[in-house]
Amino acid sequence: MTHTQVTLLQIDNYGPWTVTPSPRREVDLQTLQSRLYADLSQLIGNREGYVFFSRFDNMIAVTNGLTMADLSLIQESIRNRYPVTLSMSVAVDGSPAEALEVATSQLQDEGSAQDETRTEVLRGDPISEVERTAQDVQLAHFDVDNATEKYTDQLNEFDTFIEIEQGYAELMQYMRRAHDALSFFVGGDNVIAVCPRMDAEAYADAIDHVEDAVGVELKVGVGRDRTAQGAGMAAKHALETCREAGTAVEMNL
Amino acid sequence: MTHTQVTLLQIDNYGPWTVTPSPRREVDLQTLQSRLYADLSQLIGNREGYVFFSRFDNMIAVTNGLTMADLSLIQESIRNRYPVTLSMSVAVDGSPAEALEVATSQLQDEGSAQDETRTEVLRGDPISEVERTAQDVQLAHFDVDNATEKYTDQLNEFDTFIEIEQGYAELMQYMRRAHDALSFFVGGDNVIAVCPRMDAEAYADAIDHVEDAVGVELKVGVGRDRTAQGAGMAAKHALETCREAGTAVEMNL
Amino acid sequence: MTHTQVTLLQIDNYGPWTVTPSPRREVDLQTLQSRLYADLSQLIGNREGYVFFSRFDNMIAVTNGLTMADLSLIQESIRNRYPVTLSMSVAVDGSPAEALEVATSQLQDEGSAQDETRTEVLRGDPISEVERTAQDVQLAHFDVDNATEKYTDQLNEFDTFIEIEQGYAELMQYMRRAHDALSFFVGGDNVIAVCPRMDAEAYADAIDHVEDAVGVELKVGVGRDRTAQGAGMAAKHALETCREAGTAVEMNL
Amino acid sequence: MTHTQVTLLQIDNYGPWTVTPSPRREVDLQTLQSRLYADLSQLIGNREGYVFFSRFDNMIAVTNGLTMADLSLIQESIRNRYPVTLSMSVAVDGSPAEALEVATSQLQDEGSAQDETRTEVLRGDPISEVERTAQDVQLAHFDVDNATEKYTDQLNEFDTFIEIEQGYAELMQYMRRAHDALSFFVGGDNVIAVCPRMDAEAYADAIDHVEDAVGVELKVGVGRDRTAQGAGMAAKHALETCREAGTAVEMNL
Repeated sequence: MTHTQVTLLQIDNYGPWTVTPSPRREVDLQTLQSRLYADLSQLIGNREGYVFFSRFDNMIAVTNGLTMADLSLIQESIRNRYPVTLSMSVAVDGSPAEALEVATSQLQDEGSAQDETRTEVLRGDPISEVERTAQDVQLAHFDVDNATEKYTDQLNEFDTFIEIEQGYAELMQYMRRAHDALSFFVGGDNVIAVCPRMDAEAYADAIDHVEDAVGVELKVGVGRDRTAQGAGMAAKHALETCREAGTAVEMNL
Repeated sequence: MTHTQVTLLQIDNYGPWTVTPSPRREVDLQTLQSRLYADLSQLIGNREGYVFFSRFDNMIAVTNGLTMADLSLIQESIRNRYPVTLSMSVAVDGSPAEALEVATSQLQDEGSAQDETRTEVLRGDPISEVERTAQDVQLAHFDVDNATEKYTDQLNEFDTFIEIEQGYAELMQYMRRAHDALSFFVGGDNVIAVCPRMDAEAYADAIDHVEDAVGVELKVGVGRDRTAQGAGMAAKHALETCREAGTAVEMNL
Repeated sequence: MTHTQVTLLQIDNYGPWTVTPSPRREVDLQTLQSRLYADLSQLIGNREGYVFFSRFDNMIAVTNGLTMADLSLIQESIRNRYPVTLSMSVAVDGSPAEALEVATSQLQDEGSAQDETRTEVLRGDPISEVERTAQDVQLAHFDVDNATEKYTDQLNEFDTFIEIEQGYAELMQYMRRAHDALSFFVGGDNVIAVCPRMDAEAYADAIDHVEDAVGVELKVGVGRDRTAQGAGMAAKHALETCREAGTAVEMNL
Repeated sequence: MTHTQVTLLQIDNYGPWTVTPSPRREVDLQTLQSRLYADLSQLIGNREGYVFFSRFDNMIAVTNGLTMADLSLIQESIRNRYPVTLSMSVAVDGSPAEALEVATSQLQDEGSAQDETRTEVLRGDPISEVERTAQDVQLAHFDVDNATEKYTDQLNEFDTFIEIEQGYAELMQYMRRAHDALSFFVGGDNVIAVCPRMDAEAYADAIDHVEDAVGVELKVGVGRDRTAQGAGMAAKHALETCREAGTAVEMNL
């Protein structure tokens, strides 16, 4: 069984801040959001975790291996360098969606995302060192088969983007409903899914579903490890095997 | 009539680079992509343009006011500071989608996105200074009505994200098909659409369509100006008016 | 005669902020300072100006070509993305030191650098468009002759650093006293001096003075242009000529 | 006795790169250097180390607590995100200068800083976990007494800078010669010295020396810990005590 440590990161009272005292320049907000995400990628990645940008003001991370002290240090570092602060909530479960459900509830219990007095919440229970195993995190790295040849080099970029988005929207919902997995677009034609224990057949079904529903052909490499970094790198190598062997699903467990 | 100057920005041969000689760490790729986008936001924004991250390896910008020399300087600055290079292609049209079609074709004519000898292309015809008018760019800033109350403070974050994504996926396709507009998710519950000349009724129809199709209620502020920055800021102010007045569509032209 | 537009940039009330409510982590302060400087380099550099980090909390820029509106936009962008704000003061003079004297006084008149109510000052008179000439900015780019062979590859890095610092400390004082020039260490073994109109003999004297005083041998390329970017690039090309020709002073006017 | 783990970080073949194929824009070099330093501050700081920018192309770090694997990961992350690569060399000694001497020699043995075939060297012996003690790192945080009142609010900014630089140049040499300590300007009026075991009297002598030599009055807080972060924070708190108590030297051991 997996034990995914999921962390929800939420910018405190961000919506109101963006329009106070009047709407702030969009290019500055975009810069702020993407640099904050880049910094979190490094700070969490430096301890072998992964963070996904999702909505940018709310980010979702896999943080197996990070302690509450590590997360607190990240909160402090952001507070020292940005005009906004971050709340974080942590939970562990065999089901990534259930872990996120708990993490989200813990944060909602402390107040609204737009409550200006609710700042820098840090709650939850990370996995203890002794419970950790090499099977804790399972990640799947999907990409679109021959995306460059079929889309990027053929369609105008927005129509390519629509195709990729369609594939992603369908996959994210299917994986959520069928498996409690959390799937994130990570740029280009790539999606990374945080999964419970799933087998090759389940991934093949997901790929079939997306192709049937929206006509986008995916392939996927899957990895498992005690950290997101380990599982993600194993998944990438598996995806390379797909590319070389012409296969649709490769498990590297 | 609008004259949107659309620029396609493409990282040269990026896919192969990410796996050469073996897959690179995902957290570094995420950092690279989001910082590159942040830098482009500032470099283009400093001259009143907007850039959207879309797929990160391919970005779409509204660059009215930027010359080929300005874009060339941006190419040089990126080459000096990143391990990758950028190609850019520019076109102007009353239809944003048509402008992007031309811009994309110009780049595709120079070779594949994964052709390692095709680097730092810079092509296209910006709008000439004398032709520019205060009606050249029309931007619409959508957000989800009461997103915090209805979603963020209620659902787990991934299910909130699914709702927002559903709304976005539906809107992006409707606006593309019905109006040749290009719509981009910009974080939180916000979408910015690069539009041709459209009236209030057309926006109301788009909002109705999205609510009917996926149950997500949007509101929108619309602005028009000679630059993206001007049109975008007018649109934000209009959206503030929606918020205060409880209206769904506000035009600030 | 030169007309150097000098801008003083000062982080508002920075000292107290760094220890409120208790001392902040040094690594975060270092990150904040160096990224703020990097952003200013791009924002000012994008309009052909130069900024020098000097003390980081106080920076000195050559901003010929930037208007008060350009500087105001930079202030806004920093306010939107950092936990601190910036004051700026501008003056123009044939003597760079005199321009800075005026710019500094204008800011001091508004209150202390540690006055918490004095924020985002923006004062001064930029050069008007009609007065600008191709002789407005004269920059000299010095480096240490054979620094890698003589120091970096021979001494321990701190002793190399002491040598470079000695050369810089001597040069900065000599150029200030003898010529009202402002000299800045820019990394490696490089110093860029913002100069009034000076001839080759004056530079040769400065180099002789530094060698006599502290035994560090310098060479210098000099450029002149209507902007810092133009003058600085001309100076760099002149320095390349020194390197190829084995000369100590090259003027590229 | 202290056991300072000193790491030399050197950008590989940087000088030649900055002028190939022709001189690169100075603002881009400044941005590259300062962001590289900012990233290293976070990557090393995230593991409780300190890095000093010194010459930017050569940086000196205190890395007690970081393993060779940690440093290798930093090398990889930089290679993935910058157009340049980094070499690193590590040594431990009771004398910081001696540790740097060894670290530098190890790197010089591998080739010149401008040898294009010598890239990403990683050498040296970190302190073993069992040998580490709470007395390994001693840091002194100096600042200039009443710098704002005496200099920043009185003189033009360059003349203030000259005063600060004079104080720093004198201190760095005295501390190097008398104590084998490595002193680094860190912005504003602050200098941090990496010290061997030194007592309060030795610091008082250093302060007297600088005042006698160049008339700049310093005060200093000193801390000791198993990491740079711990020692540095103790030193900052000691410096706050100086400020409150009006003393010149405070030891927080």
